[in-house]
Amino acid sequence: MATKQPTRIESLGEFGLIDRLISGIEAHDPTTLTGAGDDAAVIDCGNGRVMVVSTDMLVEGIDFDLTYFPLKHLGYKVVTRGISDIIAMNARPSQILLSLGVSSKISVEALEELYEGARAACDRFGIDIAGGDTTASMNGLVINITALGQAERDRLVYRSGASQHDLICISGNMGAAYMGLHLLEREKRVLNDIDNPEPQFEGYEYLLEKYLKPQPRIDIVEALAEEGIRPTSMIDLSDGLASDLIQICRSSRCGARIYLERIPIARQTTALAEQMHIDPVVAALNGGEDHELLFTVPLAMQEKIMRLGLVDVIGHITAEESGVCLVTPDGENIALRAPAFDRR
Amino acid sequence: MATKQPTRIESLGEFGLIDRLISGIEAHDPTTLTGAGDDAAVIDCGNGRVMVVSTDMLVEGIDFDLTYFPLKHLGYKVVTRGISDIIAMNARPSQILLSLGVSSKISVEALEELYEGARAACDRFGIDIAGGDTTASMNGLVINITALGQAERDRLVYRSGASQHDLICISGNMGAAYMGLHLLEREKRVLNDIDNPEPQFEGYEYLLEKYLKPQPRIDIVEALAEEGIRPTSMIDLSDGLASDLIQICRSSRCGARIYLERIPIARQTTALAEQMHIDPVVAALNGGEDHELLFTVPLAMQEKIMRLGLVDVIGHITAEESGVCLVTPDGENIALRAPAFDRR
Repeated sequence: MATKQPTRIESLGEFGLIDRLISGIEAHDPTTLTGAGDDAAVIDCGNGRVMVVSTDMLVEGIDFDLTYFPLKHLGYKVVTRGISDIIAMNARPSQILLSLGVSSKISVEALEELYEGARAACDRFGIDIAGGDTTASMNGLVINITALGQAERDRLVYRSGASQHDLICISGNMGAAYMGLHLLEREKRVLNDIDNPEPQFEGYEYLLEKYLKPQPRIDIVEALAEEGIRPTSMIDLSDGLASDLIQICRSSRCGARIYLERIPIARQTTALAEQMHIDPVVAALNGGEDHELLFTVPLAMQEKIMRLGLVDVIGHITAEESGVCLVTPDGENIALRAPAFDRR
Repeated sequence: MATKQPTRIESLGEFGLIDRLISGIEAHDPTTLTGAGDDAAVIDCGNGRVMVVSTDMLVEGIDFDLTYFPLKHLGYKVVTRGISDIIAMNARPSQILLSLGVSSKISVEALEELYEGARAACDRFGIDIAGGDTTASMNGLVINITALGQAERDRLVYRSGASQHDLICISGNMGAAYMGLHLLEREKRVLNDIDNPEPQFEGYEYLLEKYLKPQPRIDIVEALAEEGIRPTSMIDLSDGLASDLIQICRSSRCGARIYLERIPIARQTTALAEQMHIDPVVAALNGGEDHELLFTVPLAMQEKIMRLGLVDVIGHITAEESGVCLVTPDGENIALRAPAFDRR
């Protein structure tokens, strides 16, 4: 490294970085069924059942801003994030472990608030806080969540199972969490020097809720199971529709075509985006943290999916050579790209 | 919180903080066998087998200093830390997941070095890197390791199983990692303003190795299993002998008496401690990160344990009322206390 210029992480993008770090890793343990590269790792329990495990780190100043993120909501959201990874494998979430790095400016009461939110989410979804670690931190709060779940081995859904002609389905709507974040950032800027700030949130409560207290879509996987629909691939929408769809296509070695006018966008999302001169479609495609589910089902399931009334079909899987495209209402094809490594 | 003074974390100590955060948590999921409060959480796999899971966060500037901690060694040590928690449950470690928070000053090559060290440890002990997460960080490097292992349910060893008259055993020697850290800190101070620093490490290579590249004592649990010795309680020595012994006593509701002259201390540890005017016994009792094993066995196992030739018997378990004591060579009893929450 003395003579060569070091490579900046941004130059690789997040996918490129992870690919480079895990390239050539060989499995040693026979219980490792799937390693890095999906929402969660899959570990064989030996009786037709598997354990799925995911890990996620959230850093103050990058992933959340404590000036407007109530700690109770943050605790809730962290759990949603962990659970979402597990249900995206079509598994039942059962435990979480929380690691905290806390700076001296954080009080015991503040940590209790964080835990209160985490416990509320766990209570709601029947999940246990099974352990954790608390360490000091030089600057700000760092949270790592490990989430665990169980499933029958043959019920699991991977990112890699999509095939040509499959329908691309989505729960909820896109870009709301992203606009919720923009709203909070705007009010923070506006009210920066004011003594008794009164932020203006009327009419945008839904966006705040989606950003500050998103719900994991356990209801969707339960409804799919009840109807006998097993997705061919699935992913938790954490990085944004474009990025997460590309992940499915990379893993499944396929292309995709989604139709702009079919992407569900909430009224409040469109209204605030227009007010802030942001293209609502950009919010919907690149805004992360919606924690909705993106999945594919065989074409033959079309009627069943429609009857469900819970999800939207936004396009279909194509051959790998066709790439990942957004089709505009006037028929234009726009190639989708994953955003670069995020250093907000 | 507006009228009441917030409680500083230091005022509770680390045990107190964790107790307060997890107090009153009720289990929801029947697969959660043991939650917070041991080296690892225990999850039922349903066929007489269990999965054990631990999580640990390491923060730059608190847990490591990159000015003298080579990234390759850091990767190795992080894995040792994870594995140690799993073997302290008498389980076989099988997978790890790594989360990284990286600031923009870290290059791709630096992360590759870190991974190289982690992979070397995984290769050596037959463990898989099964997943992870990479996020940005405002300040410095944050690493979280989740470690997983499996065991037969009735083979597990908890912190809570020690009973009166059990022998207290220890692998390796105490305080070496702590003195290794002191040596590195001293050379950093001395060589701070020098252009081509040449640190003086001769004669203390063992201490550096213990601090920078500790080995998880898988050999000990394997030897115990071969001899048919099942510890009644066990803990990984990460916080220091005094603190970790107190943990066993708290969990097992018992007291302990250990004998000062029986605590194994390496020659290099004593030599450097004396040179630096540190009491070697203080280093041995309070110095953390040795990653040796502290465990108890029934008194009847005494001969078997001695024959093993791998561990030292340093004392025995007493009634809870007697407290946790260090007995000096002249027969004095000194009560041991856990150090406060560490904000180095």
